Amino acid sequence: MVISPSLSALHTLAHNARQAALHLGSLNTAERNQAIAAIADGLTAAMPEILAANQEDCAAAEAMGIAKPLYNRLLLGESKLKSTIAGVKDVEHLPDPLGQVTLHRQLDEGLVLKRVGCPLGVLGVIFEARPEALIQISSLAIKSGNAVILKGGREATRSCQVLTEVIQTALAKTVVSPEAINLLTTREEIRELLGLNQYVDLIIPRGSNEFVQYIQQNTQIPVLGHADGICHLYLDAQADLSKAIPITVDAKTQYPAACNAIETLLVHQAIAAEFLPPLAQALGEKGVSLRGDSGTQKLIDCEPATEADWCTEYSDLILSIKIVDSLEAAIDHINQYGSKHTDGIISEDLTAAEQFCQRVDSAGVYHNCSTRFADGFRYGFGAEVGISTQKMPPRGPVGLEGLVTYKYQLWGHGHIAATYTGQGAKAFTHLDL
Amino acid sequence: MVISPSLSALHTLAHNARQAALHLGSLNTAERNQAIAAIADGLTAAMPEILAANQEDCAAAEAMGIAKPLYNRLLLGESKLKSTIAGVKDVEHLPDPLGQVTLHRQLDEGLVLKRVGCPLGVLGVIFEARPEALIQISSLAIKSGNAVILKGGREATRSCQVLTEVIQTALAKTVVSPEAINLLTTREEIRELLGLNQYVDLIIPRGSNEFVQYIQQNTQIPVLGHADGICHLYLDAQADLSKAIPITVDAKTQYPAACNAIETLLVHQAIAAEFLPPLAQALGEKGVSLRGDSGTQKLIDCEPATEADWCTEYSDLILSIKIVDSLEAAIDHINQYGSKHTDGIISEDLTAAEQFCQRVDSAGVYHNCSTRFADGFRYGFGAEVGISTQKMPPRGPVGLEGLVTYKYQLWGHGHIAATYTGQGAKAFTHLDL
Repeated sequence: MVISPSLSALHTLAHNARQAALHLGSLNTAERNQAIAAIADGLTAAMPEILAANQEDCAAAEAMGIAKPLYNRLLLGESKLKSTIAGVKDVEHLPDPLGQVTLHRQLDEGLVLKRVGCPLGVLGVIFEARPEALIQISSLAIKSGNAVILKGGREATRSCQVLTEVIQTALAKTVVSPEAINLLTTREEIRELLGLNQYVDLIIPRGSNEFVQYIQQNTQIPVLGHADGICHLYLDAQADLSKAIPITVDAKTQYPAACNAIETLLVHQAIAAEFLPPLAQALGEKGVSLRGDSGTQKLIDCEPATEADWCTEYSDLILSIKIVDSLEAAIDHINQYGSKHTDGIISEDLTAAEQFCQRVDSAGVYHNCSTRFADGFRYGFGAEVGISTQKMPPRGPVGLEGLVTYKYQLWGHGHIAATYTGQGAKAFTHLDL
Repeated sequence: MVISPSLSALHTLAHNARQAALHLGSLNTAERNQAIAAIADGLTAAMPEILAANQEDCAAAEAMGIAKPLYNRLLLGESKLKSTIAGVKDVEHLPDPLGQVTLHRQLDEGLVLKRVGCPLGVLGVIFEARPEALIQISSLAIKSGNAVILKGGREATRSCQVLTEVIQTALAKTVVSPEAINLLTTREEIRELLGLNQYVDLIIPRGSNEFVQYIQQNTQIPVLGHADGICHLYLDAQADLSKAIPITVDAKTQYPAACNAIETLLVHQAIAAEFLPPLAQALGEKGVSLRGDSGTQKLIDCEPATEADWCTEYSDLILSIKIVDSLEAAIDHINQYGSKHTDGIISEDLTAAEQFCQRVDSAGVYHNCSTRFADGFRYGFGAEVGISTQKMPPRGPVGLEGLVTYKYQLWGHGHIAATYTGQGAKAFTHLDL
């Protein structure tokens, strides 16, 4: 493809990334795995250089007065780097997501249709402070035959630059083009990237709700991810208290900033008086602030919950509580206020659980367990690309299969459509092979 | 869900459609099939009424001076209506696309993950003149457990209104809510529909390229469809002339307005002098106008092709021809100018064919057969929802599986995430069942 000289540097970079992707996508499993092994080796050899660049990023961030949690995410110590490199080797050993034949059908004698797994092409991944994300994403991209254009957090610029150079140098010794892995460093480039429909096949944003929403609203490229994670737990009339308390505590407090932590607890009125006081005590011991509707306020000590609470992802040790008069009311509340992420029911009534799992319109519907299990690693996917709250697949926690698509191959021997139309039309055999 | 009185009628309609969808999605196969059978019966009983309304539409369109092809699409004669009703009965007998378990895994003892096929929710389908599309879409929607909001062509308003009433009346006698099938009648409602992200899960536009592009660019709701269909056929150095001629003629002339008809023929220079004259003669006999690059112009009588020709979907008996010096050049041309729809190679060289099928970045990659096979019915999908040229699945011709998604159900016995994290963390079993 000829690039006109008037096109921007990013345009050229994206064009070259697509060319690299077309080549990468035609490599076999061993060739892609060798490239991943070369990345692991290159990173291991360059550890001192990488850690030094990260130290510079950390020092600069500290001088700017960065918040402690962000600093911790930016900091790439030796043990974090080593375990990330070990993760690269894990990716090398994952099953190949490409080449799977999911349909193999004779349409007629000598005319055979195959649906074959193939890469998406070019991924645009925008992530925040954690520099090890660049390593993880690069190895997943190569495993799945995709080129990637990365944009890391501003604070991590030096780390990301060194990591990209090390990975590109490693790739240069393999059959994979170094142009398969690309780094953007300015915020302006994000907006331009979002307009490159002809080169970029999927955008994966990792960051705040507002950031993901901004991306979703400013691109025609498909976006894999989720803005909100407003998850619910519903304690049914037939809930078992000995399950309800530990699951509620786990779902709220085990990692409150996670998208799969609960924000609202729905409690059936039949058990509210019995359950809420011990629940409030258990949650209080973990430092959770409670906000309740009027019924809840009569039973336990809590702040009043307003309409806004039902729509809020606290990402913090805060829980809103509402008393509902039926399973139907719980389902309706979740379908209205939830973000289609993950919602659970605690009940010993299997019919109620089945109703809940069928009628709640979320990617994850859970019975008698914590919403915190909504995660690609916990599902056994090996690697997690993200969690999608869209309805169209891939939905929920997404592993490598979110980075691949398929194409239809049709192999004939001179077959033409006219043979199968009009008077005397030949019938298709449609015989699965 | 409570609807504020300030919301529009369409908002309320969409809200009610979503409620109907949640109920419809929880029905079993037999219940949904009974509703489809009731629709077929209702339509059969109401045939005189439907044909009369269609006659009115046709008379009004004729008075407005409607073009003949559009008139033919609008006209719903007795035989077309009967065969459409027969199609409804076919949908009744298709396999149920819902409820398939595509993953069933023990995460740990007593903690079982299932990925289960489920409906998308509410479909927005915007179609043109053909009133029978309303019947087809309604039956596919109910089969797949989805509600639908339909907008037909302006010319077909009377036909669509009667059809919708007949279908709703038929549904009222079943467990499916009549609110599952809805009709919009004004163009203004389309724009509002495109903004109803919270209710509508998928938009399926059927119409001109410009119309589909307009839809794609004006909604955050996923769109299933394709704007362009710029398909190619490449005659390789090792092409067999006895296959090349009939396949080229079929791919161009069998139905030139179809999206899977070819627009550009790429010819390897090694065979151009031998192949182009007989090809030009065969195409000329079918009334095809040829536009060639400079090399082509030296070999056959044709108009000059300009850069714009490589980007044009003629949808007519016009074919552009370009001579290329290698397989690589053919692949590059297709990846640059094609619309990722369907592209074919004619060659006796299997290595070249495999290279082509691997490196051409299209939903359909064909060897030694006509691109006209790109079609859900020909692929054996039973019913076609549309053809998608997006990279993310569903891609290519899409059957009922394009109207379904999945959710993850997790069934536990009090399991919490804390058990599996930190020191002394329990390992997951990840045992496929």
